[in-house]
Amino acid sequence: MMPTITAFDRSPDQGRGLARDTRVRWALEEVGQAYEVRYLSSAAMKAPDHLAIHPFGQIPTYEEGSLCLFETGSIVLHLAERHAGLLPGDSDARARAISWMFAAVNTIEPPILDLTTARIFEADKPWSAERLPLVKDRVRARMAQLSAYLGAAEWLDGAFSAGDLLMVSVLLRLRMSGILDEYPNLAAYVARGEARPAYARAFAAQFAVNSPS
Amino acid sequence: MMPTITAFDRSPDQGRGLARDTRVRWALEEVGQAYEVRYLSSAAMKAPDHLAIHPFGQIPTYEEGSLCLFETGSIVLHLAERHAGLLPGDSDARARAISWMFAAVNTIEPPILDLTTARIFEADKPWSAERLPLVKDRVRARMAQLSAYLGAAEWLDGAFSAGDLLMVSVLLRLRMSGILDEYPNLAAYVARGEARPAYARAFAAQFAVNSPS
Repeated sequence: MMPTITAFDRSPDQGRGLARDTRVRWALEEVGQAYEVRYLSSAAMKAPDHLAIHPFGQIPTYEEGSLCLFETGSIVLHLAERHAGLLPGDSDARARAISWMFAAVNTIEPPILDLTTARIFEADKPWSAERLPLVKDRVRARMAQLSAYLGAAEWLDGAFSAGDLLMVSVLLRLRMSGILDEYPNLAAYVARGEARPAYARAFAAQFAVNSPS
Repeated sequence: MMPTITAFDRSPDQGRGLARDTRVRWALEEVGQAYEVRYLSSAAMKAPDHLAIHPFGQIPTYEEGSLCLFETGSIVLHLAERHAGLLPGDSDARARAISWMFAAVNTIEPPILDLTTARIFEADKPWSAERLPLVKDRVRARMAQLSAYLGAAEWLDGAFSAGDLLMVSVLLRLRMSGILDEYPNLAAYVARGEARPAYARAFAAQFAVNSPS
């Protein structure tokens, strides 16, 4: 049965691949699962029929027969559990890969989103310029730890996994700030993720819809 | 084999149960798994031997034979997958419970932590008073959606699950602000979580170590 995901009809990032549907598209491409997309306006995301499947009125969602899921992390995990290619076979390694999935969305992503909030949604506030270095330093504190952990390794824990998929996706949101490039091994890690054919297909699919015409 | 978790030797919350080891203790109590605790000072958390099992120098961690895990969400999921009581048997319901686990840590917790940051770590900044209402309103936006979704239900999706365990734990961090009580059904939901015998045992265990003497 072909699953259906939801995505922005016009992504606010104009096709840079930073909206969360790209993460799910990437996972689907990694496991070789074809999918359909239902595109939603911002207004449609807040309508009752979408809130019934996504209580927070966002994208992406994942529908497959009787199953409706929201939250990117759980959609990626669902795909990783049902197809080969995104989780190791060894049970310890599998549990560690899931630790990295949670680390990506719960430890690394929040300070990165705070930076976006500070730069975009609080840009017009009187405290904006004075507060920004504080927010950036919180991001750097996490980046330094992640960089020290990764060292010269190719991926976070052995072979590429769903943990890397989410971590690369989260780090991509940091590139425009210039902070990613302060950590050359992390910048190279992100570039390795982008170089995967499955990522390229996912990026192209969302770009075709969202690029400025 | 008895697992070992790590926790603060003196929790900054003085035993209010808000440190993340309480979430893991609660999961262990729900599934009836005895455990040992290794207590760490803040300095010990940043030492090389702890960074080797937790790249971000935090608690809790989970060690069980050859397996070392970090990230509370993945530890709770690991326990939920290996014992009865925290995930439904039906595969669709199981996937939805995992969605709620990710929603707790990726959608609900970040704005709540931002409020803590604003109130504690930016309390002395010149923008603190003017910025706080903005931060609170971001929390309220999520609370309103969660409250509307929960309605009069007892738990998020049928029986109590690991999704509820994490969501209640995250919402507990909001109580002191007064915002939780603005949503009576969410306050009652949190109280139902606290009333579970397994939560009471987890709370008591951390309180015994952390309460002011």
